[in-house]
Amino acid sequence: MKIGFIGLGIMGRPMALNLKKGGHELIVPERASLTGDVREAARVVATPRDVAAESETLILMLPDTPDVETVLFGENGAAEGLRKGTLVIDMSSISPIETRDYAKRINAKGCDYLDAPVSGGEVGAKQATLTVMIGGPDAAFERAKPLFELMGKTITHVGPENGAGQVCKVANQIIVALNIQAVSEALVFASRAGADPAKVRAAISGGFAASRVLELHGERMIKGSFDPGFKIKLHQKDLNLALSSAKALDLALPNTAVVQQLFASCIAHGGAEQDHSALIQVTEGLAAHSIRDKK
Amino acid sequence: MKIGFIGLGIMGRPMALNLKKGGHELIVPERASLTGDVREAARVVATPRDVAAESETLILMLPDTPDVETVLFGENGAAEGLRKGTLVIDMSSISPIETRDYAKRINAKGCDYLDAPVSGGEVGAKQATLTVMIGGPDAAFERAKPLFELMGKTITHVGPENGAGQVCKVANQIIVALNIQAVSEALVFASRAGADPAKVRAAISGGFAASRVLELHGERMIKGSFDPGFKIKLHQKDLNLALSSAKALDLALPNTAVVQQLFASCIAHGGAEQDHSALIQVTEGLAAHSIRDKK
Repeated sequence: MKIGFIGLGIMGRPMALNLKKGGHELIVPERASLTGDVREAARVVATPRDVAAESETLILMLPDTPDVETVLFGENGAAEGLRKGTLVIDMSSISPIETRDYAKRINAKGCDYLDAPVSGGEVGAKQATLTVMIGGPDAAFERAKPLFELMGKTITHVGPENGAGQVCKVANQIIVALNIQAVSEALVFASRAGADPAKVRAAISGGFAASRVLELHGERMIKGSFDPGFKIKLHQKDLNLALSSAKALDLALPNTAVVQQLFASCIAHGGAEQDHSALIQVTEGLAAHSIRDKK
Repeated sequence: MKIGFIGLGIMGRPMALNLKKGGHELIVPERASLTGDVREAARVVATPRDVAAESETLILMLPDTPDVETVLFGENGAAEGLRKGTLVIDMSSISPIETRDYAKRINAKGCDYLDAPVSGGEVGAKQATLTVMIGGPDAAFERAKPLFELMGKTITHVGPENGAGQVCKVANQIIVALNIQAVSEALVFASRAGADPAKVRAAISGGFAASRVLELHGERMIKGSFDPGFKIKLHQKDLNLALSSAKALDLALPNTAVVQQLFASCIAHGGAEQDHSALIQVTEGLAAHSIRDKK
């Protein structure tokens, strides 16, 4: 199948190459940042409009909501080039509310639209083990499924309405952020109260406190190794999406709001590029106590 | 071994009976609430002092900090009867700070003290699969280990200082409470934004959002089945312990403080006896939206 792919960054590049490996043709827009392997694997054309004009399926993997809007509806945007029947799949993590608007405008051109954000990071993208959360019509999902299976492992059609995939991704990011804060408060409490945080983590890992975050991020916290992983600035962006969507829905999310503020403090201290497990440093800072201090 | 056991409620009763099954002798104080099986299994004496006077090991399993203080140091309390060399094990979940004081006073009588709170609930107590978190000297721990193994499965010696077990238990309860709120905010967000919370839960259960709470409490939330399980009023008590200890340590725990307030709201609405997964009802109330509403 002829697949247009726009957004060939850390995530998009390995995802596109996995599609190529699966036997598909790639069409991408010219960018100075295109790497040699992508230039070799893809046909490079000038603009998103030109990509769309040649594509049977068009996939986007962009940083944020405004990027998706520009690529779809800006000057020389994809919407200008789309042929009737082309399937548009936005795999970026963006606003669920804007997503519904974009889907309507794409549908008006006789094209189906799926929102299909992912989790699993760069490793998941390279190993084709991403979790993909999809919102959009059943028929479009069935058509796209073989492509998702080339990029991911856990493929869930969350619902037939556009935006359901983005809503699911935001819900995921809320839980991960709040679980990181949960482990942060517990380990700072334990350490400040005189217990060894590593022993505490081991003692409670088999019970109701068990989580992937306690397992992975808890270990990073104890070691103090905050190389990303998933960057604070990206998780902050996701909580901003959660809170702006919640605001539009008159929805109060007290702990999400607190953690968004705590991420802001991480960034104020120069931590934007650190792994999100570095969120513990705010709680440590509040206590004037590091869990890695020698007693 | 002659084991005194004080506190034969929902948890203590099966724990004591598992010790009896393991070949030990039980001595318990007279209470109107003693059940027939305990009367049959144990020698019943008048007061905690009388229990202590006959015990090689004395185990407490009481509701809260003041109960432990009364049983140990009140009139006819255990401390009056303790013989030198008796091992005192407090398996109640109480204040880590008071625990250190109690341990010192017991040590002054020539007796060792272990704090050894548990998690795993009534089911874990009956099946002898409790998680036991122990603080206190190595030698005392080694002496008590065979008894813990008759009552629990995951036995962790958190540290040689008294209080380390209680600190660990509090850390556990912080994580569980905050993870419940994380799942609550995520599912209310998802549902209010138009996605099916059951599908969202399924989609994200394999990734970084995975937790025992998402698995167990998430399912209760979606079904709306809030029979305990673990009661809101008990989890509220545990967060009160966390916050009073944190206050004594000049420690700020922002999300723990918020969830303690949200538990207070549950109790205000008559939810004290509900399972702690009913915490979601506060976030639902804030949004004037139930995740179990038909769309």
